[in-house]
This record gives sequence, structure tokens and C-alpha cells, in this order.
Amino acid sequence: MNAEIIAVGTELLLGQIANTNARFLSTELARIGINVFYHSVVGDNQARLVEVIETARKRSDLIIFTGGLGPTKDDLTKETVASVLALKLVEDSYVLKKIDSYFKRQNRQMTENNRKQAFVIEGSTVFQNDFGTAPGLAVSKNNRIYMLFPGPPSELKPMFQSFGRPLLLEQLEIKEHIESRVLKFFGIGESQLETEVLDLIDAQTNPTIAPLIEDGEATLRLTAKDLSLEKATKMLDEVEKEIQKRVGQYFYGYNGSTLYKEVFELLKTKKMTVSSAESLTGGGFANELTNFAGSSSVFKGSIVCYDTEVKRNVLQVPAEVIEDFGVVSQECAKHMAENVRKLLNTDIGISFTGVAGPDEQEGKPVGTVFVGMAINGQDTRVFPLNLAGSRSGIRTKSVKNGYFHLLKALLKI
Amino acid sequence: MNAEIIAVGTELLLGQIANTNARFLSTELARIGINVFYHSVVGDNQARLVEVIETARKRSDLIIFTGGLGPTKDDLTKETVASVLALKLVEDSYVLKKIDSYFKRQNRQMTENNRKQAFVIEGSTVFQNDFGTAPGLAVSKNNRIYMLFPGPPSELKPMFQSFGRPLLLEQLEIKEHIESRVLKFFGIGESQLETEVLDLIDAQTNPTIAPLIEDGEATLRLTAKDLSLEKATKMLDEVEKEIQKRVGQYFYGYNGSTLYKEVFELLKTKKMTVSSAESLTGGGFANELTNFAGSSSVFKGSIVCYDTEVKRNVLQVPAEVIEDFGVVSQECAKHMAENVRKLLNTDIGISFTGVAGPDEQEGKPVGTVFVGMAINGQDTRVFPLNLAGSRSGIRTKSVKNGYFHLLKALLKI
Repeated sequence: MNAEIIAVGTELLLGQIANTNARFLSTELARIGINVFYHSVVGDNQARLVEVIETARKRSDLIIFTGGLGPTKDDLTKETVASVLALKLVEDSYVLKKIDSYFKRQNRQMTENNRKQAFVIEGSTVFQNDFGTAPGLAVSKNNRIYMLFPGPPSELKPMFQSFGRPLLLEQLEIKEHIESRVLKFFGIGESQLETEVLDLIDAQTNPTIAPLIEDGEATLRLTAKDLSLEKATKMLDEVEKEIQKRVGQYFYGYNGSTLYKEVFELLKTKKMTVSSAESLTGGGFANELTNFAGSSSVFKGSIVCYDTEVKRNVLQVPAEVIEDFGVVSQECAKHMAENVRKLLNTDIGISFTGVAGPDEQEGKPVGTVFVGMAINGQDTRVFPLNLAGSRSGIRTKSVKNGYFHLLKALLKI
Repeated sequence: MNAEIIAVGTELLLGQIANTNARFLSTELARIGINVFYHSVVGDNQARLVEVIETARKRSDLIIFTGGLGPTKDDLTKETVASVLALKLVEDSYVLKKIDSYFKRQNRQMTENNRKQAFVIEGSTVFQNDFGTAPGLAVSKNNRIYMLFPGPPSELKPMFQSFGRPLLLEQLEIKEHIESRVLKFFGIGESQLETEVLDLIDAQTNPTIAPLIEDGEATLRLTAKDLSLEKATKMLDEVEKEIQKRVGQYFYGYNGSTLYKEVFELLKTKKMTVSSAESLTGGGFANELTNFAGSSSVFKGSIVCYDTEVKRNVLQVPAEVIEDFGVVSQECAKHMAENVRKLLNTDIGISFTGVAGPDEQEGKPVGTVFVGMAINGQDTRVFPLNLAGSRSGIRTKSVKNGYFHLLKALLKI
């Protein structure tokens, strides 16, 4: 099955946003063995959209649309697909009820143009939208499958996973299994990682090993194909074993995992609590951890001590420490970690102090960062970092380094 | 002049990277008045690339390619464009010398396949590459312009600015200015916003008014075309004035602005400091503000009081308040805002408490949120919110609502 992804929206052609939906869908389709041969982007213009659909029909079996399902007059995807396929639009009373209750929940009035969203293509499977008002849908005609999803990624992604993917798996008569596994690393550059496993990359085509960068982290994607799922999985296990032997100390997780998630899960397993004292990271550590539902069982709070006064008065970092060593120092990081642990009564206290830039501070260059870690019953440790990059990059890398060192410490407990 | 951007690279179709080059080029082309009507992505496959070029030739005057200019066998763009246009490839001795010296500078050996990069399409203008080895080029045939750029953004961007853009400006004979302005709103849905200005949208084609959603916020994009830049700007001013009259209470900024940035700038202007007490937002307010270089002049810190114990012991929220009303309450938000302001000694204290989900808390449904605001010399106010969406959506919307109410309060000071 060959697929094409058509994004509809003038905002893409004006460069206001990048087509990240095509990236997401491509990754997901590759995972279930569907080849994507084309991405297309077209504006909110009916004539050009018709032309793009006509071209796609000639060359692709599966055509996935994103965007143009909203309530406004500019939103034309559903209407245009229906017209090209010579199918009618019909009002779906269930969808209408859903939209109505969505507005009620938000204490807002449903406007007349929202009603337009309750129309669906006749004979289609309707995908409900739990995060917005526009439903998605799938319809087949002349051996081609057309799927329509709303443009906002927060609506498209869950909708594809809940409805689009299962429907495609049902349609596919799977013969060959394509299994892929992503190994995620931290603290090693992409080219160094590639160098360490270059002979493995060159030696084989099944499984393939592809190095890539994701969110600034080096990853390896292993992909094995076989008629037997068991065999494909075994092939992945074997090549992974060899890779782990070489660069295992930098490894932290698989597909879809993050440093944050690994730490969160480990804290839960070990029933340990953490608190943070954050200067340059400005709450970034706390913010990542509290993203997880149930984080209240492992996280108590953070003292964001951006100002020196807060380090002194709330965190009780001794004035001599600040005078003698400065706030960007091993000593300050140590006191911050120990004191936040005590103040918030947790098993672990982690601290971040450093220079995010753009200007140096206390004569210390941009990128100088100290991560402190106080664990109940252990000696407090401080990790000095020298980070490169923009202000925002240094802040993010500081947070990630904190999570990485916390992960390594937790694995030893 | 109507343009199309063709990105060549299987990594895009596998979802390994997003097509950020198309976004960059679209923005740049819009700035000089060139309409982009299509983006296409195709893999490293000659037959499919030929087909995409043939389609583009029929509908676009300017066709810009990115990617596929590297030294490997997969890199086919130059060869395929030459073949479709029936033009020859010729070795360019200047480019060859540049590539050779690039390798010498890096203490690396030039390999034979790097030599392939010294071939250019006959009759083309060659764009030198200061950040890599593959040159770019432009060639005209049958009133169509073809431009080829390497895929890495760090090579494409400077090359487009130095060579592509000036060449296009020279080619453009019409000096029509396309001015666009984005108005950003908060606290009003996309469809309600459209309803309020529907008659304006329908009434005119120059300027055009297009509603769209960006980062979950409703925006209006106004675009005016005129031979005179002054006239185009005046047209925008007039239509904006009418829009502001109708929905100005939801407006917060223009192109590229964010609620965070507006608040940061206003705090600087008014020389005021802020601190936050954050429960469900987990440091999200602090994290956004400390993203800005120079935020230390307006932000002192935050108490992330995820746990009730921290609200009581660090923030000194009275036990009776928590017992009588719960931590998700107007009263708790009030004490949190007032107490963080005093504890951190700032002009303003802002607080966030609520239920991010997935489960209800204290019998209060998911999405119940209170934002407290204590401003020196004013009565403390608490804004109750009823938010819909995912856990992460509710957290982000809480932070944004805090910034929005803070912005409105600052504008009155």
C-alpha cells in the first residue's frame, strides 16, 4: 500500500507553521509497513485542492489529509474530497451532539458555523475528536482509502492512534513484519555514536541500523523485516545486544521514552520522592516531572530561586558561600540540593545553578552549570557541566543532564 | 510569480525530519511578494522525482528544490532536473577547487564521490556554499526558473539569502508590495472570532482577513497588496482599527509575539517584579518567563507547591483554609498569591491551583482552576477557570490564562 499525505492550509504555504503532521504520520505509517511516497501541501483553495487530489488518486492507494476541517469558510477539505469522489455530505446527529456538549463544557455558545462540522461524507467511518470539535473520517472508493484528520497536532495524533491506525491494520493484509526499535542515548554525540557502531551499520541490511538526532539526542533506529514476527524480534535483540555492549553506558530507553519518563517510572517503582531547587532552569525540572499524571506521588515541589535573595532567604544558602564562591558554584549547588531536600522533606533534592547566557556571570562563561544531587543517606554530589548552545538550549540541556544523572543514581539504589 | 517548493529526500518521507526548509523558504518568498501555491516532498527515487518535476512545470513559474545535492548515489536532484530540462552537466573548475580546499581546511581527504558535486547544469548560475560542499544553482528554461539548494538548513539558509533572494528580486519586474499583519487573541474561540468579523471577511479581497489557530490561540491574518508600501500599510491600519473596535478586549499582540513576551516587556517597562506560587502548573509560569534573557530584572522566583505540605509549610497557607475549602479553591489561590509575593518580596504574586486530571480532586472536576493575583496596593483577585482538554492542555491553558490576566492588569497600572 502506497500512501500520500496532503496537508491543506495557507498558513503552511506562508511559512507560519512547519508541516509536522506529515512527519508524525510518516513515522507512524512506516511503523506499520506502509510506504509514503509523497507529501503535498496546498492552500485553502478549492481549484488547487481538486487538482492535488486528482494527482494523488492516480498514484497512491492511501491518501491522508490533514487540516481544513474547521468551522470557518476557509475550511474546504471535506467538501472538496466529497465533490471529487461524487459523494454527498450528510449531517451526523451524534457528532452534532458531541460538538454541542463540547461547547457546553467550556461554557461557550455553539455558533452556526460550528454546525458545519457535524456534516460527514456519506458512507464514511467517523472518527470522534476528544480534543476539539472537528471529527475525522475515512472513506473508500475505487480501491482507494481517503482519511481526513483535523490540522491541530493535539487533535490529529490521538485520533490517528485511536482510529486511523487500527483501521489501516485491519485493511492491510500483513505478510511481512517490519519491526523497528529505537534506542535512545544521552551524553554522546551523533557522530561519536555512529563511529562506535559504524562496522555494524556497514555490515548488514537486515536489520538496518540508522543513526539520527531526535530532540537533540542521539538515537539509533533498528529495523528488521521477516515473515515471522518472532524472527524479526530476535534479529533486533541480537543487534541490540552488540550495541549495548559498546555504548550501553549512554543508553537510557526505547521508542517513545524520554529521560523524564524513565526517571518518573523509577521514582514510582522505588517509592522515592524528589524536590528541586532551580536557578537557571527556572522550573524546567519541575515542569517536566509534573507533566505526568500521578506525579504527586513522587514530586513534592520546587523552589525556583532565580534571584540570589531567594537562594539566601528561602533556601538558606549561607551568605559566606555566596560571597566566597558565588551563586554559580559547586558549593552553592550543594547547599541548594541539600536544603531543598530538607525544606520540602523529600528523599532526593536536585539543584541547578549556572549561566544560561547571553552574558557571562560572576566571571564564569556562558554554559557553566552545576547540578547538585542530595540523596538521603548518601554523600551529596555535584556534577559540573560545560554546555554549548543558545540560552534555551543550555537550559534544556541542564534539565536533561539533571534527569540523566538522577536516572543513573536511581538505577544504583 | 507562482512558486512551488520541492523537497527531495527519503528521510522526510520516513518522518525522520520535518520539512522546515519549506517553511523557511515560504516565509522568505512571501516577504518579497511571491505566492507559494504548493509544497511537494518526494524520495530519492528518479522516476517519482521526474513525475513531480513534470507536474510542477505545468503549474508553477518558480520551482525551488531542496536536498539531493550531496555526494552519495542517492543524491539525484541535479541529475534529474538536468535530464528533464534536456540540459547537460558540466564540471565547474572553480567549484572543484572550493570543495578541495573545504576538505583541506577540515584535514580530510576529498573522496571521488565528492567530485560529483563539482558538476553543474550548463548555463546555470552557481551559488557557492560556505558551510558545506554542495553548491546550489539556478537555471531558466521556457520562462520557468529552477533553483536547487542543498538540504541542510545551515547551508540552505545563508545560500538563499546571499544568492537566491537577490536573484529573484532582480527577476521580479512587478514591484507590488504584499504586507501582512497577524493579530493575536486570547480568550475567544476561532469560530466566535470569525463570527464577530464575518461581514469584514466577506466584504473585501484586499486586504484579506483570514482566521487561523496557532498554538491553540485564535489569530487573524490581514494581507494587503499595493504598488505603494505606504498605501498597503494604511489599508492594514484601517481594517485593524475596525477589528480592534469589535474584539479588542481579546487582542494581545502582533506577528511573532506571545503572551509571555508581552508580559515580560511590560514588566520591564513598568519596572515591576513578579513571583509565582504554582501547584498544577508545576513551574510552567516560571519556566516561560525565565526563557527570556534579562528576566532576572523582573522575576525573582517561584514556589512550586505541588504537595499540600509545601503549600502549608513553605507558603504558609493556613490549615483552616485547606480544611474548609480545599487546595483547589478561590481561598487557597488567594493565600498562595499573597504569601508568595511577601515571601519573595515582589510587586506581584501570581498563583495557580486546580485539577489537571486525569482524575477529579476534592470532588472538583478536571479543568477546575483558580488563578490568584496579588498586586502591591491592590485588592487580591482570583480568576476561576473551567478548562477543557488533556492534562497537558489544561496545564498550558492555565499558564496562558495567568499571563493574559497579568497582561490586562499591567496595562491598567
